[in-house]
Amino acid sequence: MAEAVPEGAGLTVTTEPKVDGERLWRRHMQLAEIGALPGGGVDRQAMSAADVEARRLLMRWGSAIDLQPAIDAAGNLFLRRPGREPGEAPVMTGSHLDTQPHGGRFDGAYGVLAGLEVLTALAEADLQTRRPVDLVVWNNEEGCRFAPTTMGSAVFAGALALEDALATRDAEGMCVADVLPTLMAATPDAAPRALGSPVSSYIEAHIEQGPVLEDRDCPVGVVTGIQGLRWFTVEVRGQAAHAGTTPQRRRRDALMSTVSILEALRKHFYDSSDVVRFTVGRLQVIPNSPNTVPERVSFSIDFRHPESRVLESLGDAVPSVCAGAVGTCSVTVSEASASPPIRFDPDIIETLADAARELGIDHMRLQSGATHDAKWVSRLAPSGMIFVPCAGGISHSEAESATPAALEAGTRVLTRALLRLAERA
Amino acid sequence: MAEAVPEGAGLTVTTEPKVDGERLWRRHMQLAEIGALPGGGVDRQAMSAADVEARRLLMRWGSAIDLQPAIDAAGNLFLRRPGREPGEAPVMTGSHLDTQPHGGRFDGAYGVLAGLEVLTALAEADLQTRRPVDLVVWNNEEGCRFAPTTMGSAVFAGALALEDALATRDAEGMCVADVLPTLMAATPDAAPRALGSPVSSYIEAHIEQGPVLEDRDCPVGVVTGIQGLRWFTVEVRGQAAHAGTTPQRRRRDALMSTVSILEALRKHFYDSSDVVRFTVGRLQVIPNSPNTVPERVSFSIDFRHPESRVLESLGDAVPSVCAGAVGTCSVTVSEASASPPIRFDPDIIETLADAARELGIDHMRLQSGATHDAKWVSRLAPSGMIFVPCAGGISHSEAESATPAALEAGTRVLTRALLRLAERA
Repeated sequence: MAEAVPEGAGLTVTTEPKVDGERLWRRHMQLAEIGALPGGGVDRQAMSAADVEARRLLMRWGSAIDLQPAIDAAGNLFLRRPGREPGEAPVMTGSHLDTQPHGGRFDGAYGVLAGLEVLTALAEADLQTRRPVDLVVWNNEEGCRFAPTTMGSAVFAGALALEDALATRDAEGMCVADVLPTLMAATPDAAPRALGSPVSSYIEAHIEQGPVLEDRDCPVGVVTGIQGLRWFTVEVRGQAAHAGTTPQRRRRDALMSTVSILEALRKHFYDSSDVVRFTVGRLQVIPNSPNTVPERVSFSIDFRHPESRVLESLGDAVPSVCAGAVGTCSVTVSEASASPPIRFDPDIIETLADAARELGIDHMRLQSGATHDAKWVSRLAPSGMIFVPCAGGISHSEAESATPAALEAGTRVLTRALLRLAERA
Repeated sequence: MAEAVPEGAGLTVTTEPKVDGERLWRRHMQLAEIGALPGGGVDRQAMSAADVEARRLLMRWGSAIDLQPAIDAAGNLFLRRPGREPGEAPVMTGSHLDTQPHGGRFDGAYGVLAGLEVLTALAEADLQTRRPVDLVVWNNEEGCRFAPTTMGSAVFAGALALEDALATRDAEGMCVADVLPTLMAATPDAAPRALGSPVSSYIEAHIEQGPVLEDRDCPVGVVTGIQGLRWFTVEVRGQAAHAGTTPQRRRRDALMSTVSILEALRKHFYDSSDVVRFTVGRLQVIPNSPNTVPERVSFSIDFRHPESRVLESLGDAVPSVCAGAVGTCSVTVSEASASPPIRFDPDIIETLADAARELGIDHMRLQSGATHDAKWVSRLAPSGMIFVPCAGGISHSEAESATPAALEAGTRVLTRALLRLAERA
């Protein structure tokens, strides 16, 4: 076995393990057959039969290059390529294999298969790093059947108690503890791994799920952080009344009040620089009958921004903006969840940017609008992310698409950065 | 048997059958026990066991004063007090006994029990009219389980084919033909009555279901007609996108477009005289997920006005108003249903107004905002309606309420008007 070329001032990596872009693409297509939908997308929800089958396929690929499997109590799967110094904490890369019910072929899958490609390239180059390199598959990133999202990484990082995760129920009343054993049984040879086990650094590759890279025709994004988020639930209460008989002046129409509130919120969150993310994705009308004046409307606000200061100032004003526009109805605003902005480790960011530069791959820095497992892992270890463009910025959709060239470019940057980090003391 | 005093110029009715307000109220309360809900309301949906029981109770009251039952193929029940000239077409009064799932004690019930009170008072006064007087119970006025509303009267008047009514299915797949026999069995002694049998005139008493009479502290409304109605379905189509990653300038947010459209429609339908009725009662968002930019929104428009000209001008402009406000999304507007304004017979209106005046009962003329069985019967015979106030204008609600005094006042006007009409050649 050769040794990886160590990092040093003025030095460049001379032995570059060969990333095979064609193999990487083939594996994406092969994985996408598991849970395939007629529209070209994938339904492979966490802990489903398809999720189990996807792990079995990954295990076959991993055992062909002698990766050592381990699993933790939250169902996170780790495939290790040992390092020269076995006592050292691993560098880690990966993402998730579960998808949305009408998901695509790249969200999550790319981070796992890019990591597998790094390890396969290392194996083919017969290159052994100082630290172990772990490929991780976080369990239940999408959180569709069992909320919240990023469940597995949250438990691993200590942000969510294992017992709370196991007790989470789906709409039919089944809980995670009921279905997790089936997922565990997919990897009978996996050794137990403790939650929160040491990690020296973590890099996650992912499709951008937004349009920035595609707009700038840039193949690789170095992610500087994940923007902060505040979720609100707004309830507007009026009075049900007969649509045919009730004069406007007598109405307390919860939907018309909501229209005024949404207009006011749209103005409130307007940002000419287009950094603020303000979305009302869910809205429900009660009783929702064509000839009854709406009695109640509830809606969600998803507000995101990279800066804590802005999250605070614009978010804190939501109740007063709603109250100012509600008219004759009444309104209550409650904050459903919040997460502060994450800044990835400056050294990891520089390592990624250096790797791209050295490889002559065009890159740019950008924020992540979406949440990822790296959010939680960054609590345990210096972390960062690589984005590659996806067509039209579309994700969580069967139409999700990416190019083989972009997937390969991102994986080359990942490979070089991981090699650097894996040599560090 | 005395004869009713005939109508004539300058004459007033000298023999006034005695309406018993206490009995009328008691019967309302007794009827409300059938299908009673804990909140004081009633669930007595058409062709349910409760509906059957309500008809049995009515039959007992009717047979005590020798009313002659008949039933038609649509399940409309007729209880006749014969006239002096049996070959003459009857004057008719009544309404419905079915309720909304969370209905009140007066909607429909009042019209039936007021008619029964008229016939009871005639019997007690031993007064025989020239024409027969028929008390009618229209089947399935509410149309909750089996749409449409006013099914029975529509079939009787030839506006809906019997076979179409019988084939109507509920959410569980049962059809009217499956459940109608049970209702028919409640009145085994009823003679068959042909659909569209001659009617000389029709008066329906009903609670107003709106606030106008209560606002003016007026016990009786003489209804001049039923306003016209146009229902539209609007579909706004945008593009689903990730709430965290998609900049505003890239969004085609179906809900935000809908907000702009609803603002524009609100302006379009604004009427300082408050006669226009514009309601968006139903609105649905797809996929309705907090962190996804809405892809599609569909909503209903319920637009009513007493004047055809206004229904036409404001209604015809709905597609262009929507298209003008939709922005980057697309919109389609389809008309789901329409019914022209009904003007009740001027002679019936005058007869009702005269009766109120003669009795010294304060009254006013008003339009009906809601639809009633009288809409269809007016196709067959000169028709009219009497309204009495209901508390807060609230109906289709367990909170529905009316005063014994108002129920009595309306019934007295009904009695006098029916007597007049029943003497006419």
